[in-house]
Amino acid sequence: MPVNLVSPNPADLYPIAGVRIGVAEAGVRKVGRKDLTVVLLDAGASVSGVFTTNRFCAAPVQMCREHLNSGQQIRALLINTGNANAGTGADGMVRARSTCIALAQRLDIAVEQILPFSTGVIMEPLPADRIIAGLDAAIANAQPDHWVRAAEGIMTTDTIAKAFGAQVQIGGKLVSISGISKGAGMIRPNMATMLGFMATDACVSQAVMQQLAFELAEGSFNRVTVDGDTSTNDSFVVIASNKAGNVTIESLDSADGQALKAAMLEVARKLAQAIVRDGEGATKFISVQVEGGKTEDECRQVAYAIAHSPLVKTAFFASDPNLGRILAAVGYAGIADLDQSLIELHLDDVHVATLGGRNPSYREEDGQRVMKQSEITVRVGLGRGTATQTVWTCDFSHEYVTINADYRS
Amino acid sequence: MPVNLVSPNPADLYPIAGVRIGVAEAGVRKVGRKDLTVVLLDAGASVSGVFTTNRFCAAPVQMCREHLNSGQQIRALLINTGNANAGTGADGMVRARSTCIALAQRLDIAVEQILPFSTGVIMEPLPADRIIAGLDAAIANAQPDHWVRAAEGIMTTDTIAKAFGAQVQIGGKLVSISGISKGAGMIRPNMATMLGFMATDACVSQAVMQQLAFELAEGSFNRVTVDGDTSTNDSFVVIASNKAGNVTIESLDSADGQALKAAMLEVARKLAQAIVRDGEGATKFISVQVEGGKTEDECRQVAYAIAHSPLVKTAFFASDPNLGRILAAVGYAGIADLDQSLIELHLDDVHVATLGGRNPSYREEDGQRVMKQSEITVRVGLGRGTATQTVWTCDFSHEYVTINADYRS
Repeated sequence: MPVNLVSPNPADLYPIAGVRIGVAEAGVRKVGRKDLTVVLLDAGASVSGVFTTNRFCAAPVQMCREHLNSGQQIRALLINTGNANAGTGADGMVRARSTCIALAQRLDIAVEQILPFSTGVIMEPLPADRIIAGLDAAIANAQPDHWVRAAEGIMTTDTIAKAFGAQVQIGGKLVSISGISKGAGMIRPNMATMLGFMATDACVSQAVMQQLAFELAEGSFNRVTVDGDTSTNDSFVVIASNKAGNVTIESLDSADGQALKAAMLEVARKLAQAIVRDGEGATKFISVQVEGGKTEDECRQVAYAIAHSPLVKTAFFASDPNLGRILAAVGYAGIADLDQSLIELHLDDVHVATLGGRNPSYREEDGQRVMKQSEITVRVGLGRGTATQTVWTCDFSHEYVTINADYRS
Repeated sequence: MPVNLVSPNPADLYPIAGVRIGVAEAGVRKVGRKDLTVVLLDAGASVSGVFTTNRFCAAPVQMCREHLNSGQQIRALLINTGNANAGTGADGMVRARSTCIALAQRLDIAVEQILPFSTGVIMEPLPADRIIAGLDAAIANAQPDHWVRAAEGIMTTDTIAKAFGAQVQIGGKLVSISGISKGAGMIRPNMATMLGFMATDACVSQAVMQQLAFELAEGSFNRVTVDGDTSTNDSFVVIASNKAGNVTIESLDSADGQALKAAMLEVARKLAQAIVRDGEGATKFISVQVEGGKTEDECRQVAYAIAHSPLVKTAFFASDPNLGRILAAVGYAGIADLDQSLIELHLDDVHVATLGGRNPSYREEDGQRVMKQSEITVRVGLGRGTATQTVWTCDFSHEYVTINADYRS
């Protein structure tokens, strides 16, 4: 059961002028499900993406990088679930390319104008023939209001589709934003592959798109973790269809740039947090907020140490205020000159530890009360500076082990 | 159930001349168990230790460092289970010191000649009064052949005592080695605290003891992981009682030094591997061997990424050859210039992946066969150099979550 997350209502997503989405059944891994999605862009869209840092990145990720670097205008996204086309060596590149070539022929564009994405089982050959056979149906299905269908089309072990939208005034024009994401920690039967796609009709120059994609990812998808396993396929793509009629945003530091980024970041955060809320086996949504660091990097480092600790995560699952586990994670996070005697720890409003030891006024029943909630904020003070960072994660339950261990045994 | 590990037979441990061990019931956390251990050393022993890198280190760890740095000869170790005296701030230091003072008075030695160790629940005040009350009984119990009793006395969530011994000829003299360890991943009700103690009657100069302790730890305890949670209390102490009559070892590079180190390393590895075999919820013992690295550091980095991955560990639990998960962990281990097209993967004798993709001759039933074993070697080739490193770990089971989540809910 996802934590405080409901299925998206298609009416809450905004069609984005210049963006049409089509889904089809290609039978990549299972029959009877819409596992193929195409996103068709009118000419003139600005597109950028950020991709996994995993050195074992999947063939489609390598191809996305190539195509984005080619300088050609992106006109289509081609997304399949059921097979990640990762760990497939040179053959994986050939298969990914063949699907792009087939779509390029049908759309009468260059192959470099297509970005391919795959998610699902890894180290299995991509069934390119079945994907190609499904392209005509997907193209025929393309409509501006198919965002929720796309969100459903890219799911793997997700238990719920993830789609959010927003509208904002930019330079006197009403601008729409829609986005979808998928990912739940690990993909049955293999691994987590996080995908996120966002589009706006705002006019944004290509020159600032990379910065926009980077900053949105940094403030959203790069702040969530389910289990610390960085996937081979993580991809996040931002599209500006340049149809809204606002004066084109040439700098993110401009008032319009700031306004658009803020609105898009809010959607990106909802998409990213939805992945944690639907994390495999998740029963709780946990915000880990680290304050008083010398740098944002060290705050993030501490936050991730807490968010990745199996000890901390199983304690949250049990609603058990074993909060020394959090102090231990702070201690091993890798800050060489950390002074433990300055550490403060709050659980929501409860002051658990002060000056590196148990707060004399802390009562276990207060910790217990917060631990039972479905949403919890862990707040750690490092006492070294003014930097702060927040990371979102979930707890670690029996269901997580079941999902990742029992599915074919 | 520990993986291929049986209870030690006291007859297999060697008394070490100049070392006597006594245990007693102090009622630190539970009644009716021997939770207090003293190790009494004759004058003239060489002693050294290595300790947790966790910045939130426990009070006894801080005190051990102080006492070892004082230059005074160590004459006693004071070990309690049931309470880790970690996350206890300045008060924790006062309480640790009071127990050392009480033992020093009874033994008529200086407080700096005592090394204190605590393991168990954290962020709770150490019941120093009960420990002090138990000291007389522990001292009265001291005997050279109490190694297994000490191994039992320091257990927490361990399901089995861990003690190993060896004998080796050094400079024409028969030298004995005995060691004990504890730790199982996390300690009910709080966290993992690994303790290891080894003693030999060999004559070893104090000057080389720190190097000996460091090298033994590097080749054993620093190569195991259950869950990646570095504890606040990890301590490993090496004692040479200097009674065996061999010419004192002044250099580890000498023939005698090499011979002693090799024999001690074998015992240290058994002790360290025993912690993994008895890891919380462990059903399998897994050796992760990374070859072909540019440096040992990068090999270790990759090995730990594999050994810490919840994905990999749950796959081992399920005996499910989801081996792409291992490739993914290799990819996110942090080697920026890793070339995925050079990666090789073996599971025991089965060649799973070659040139970064699935080995064409790999058959899933072969992977399945190895995955069902209780001892498995994962061998990764990086194709970048000649360095190699091995790390030992266990799988990740339902029982792990149960142990760490359900115990007081």
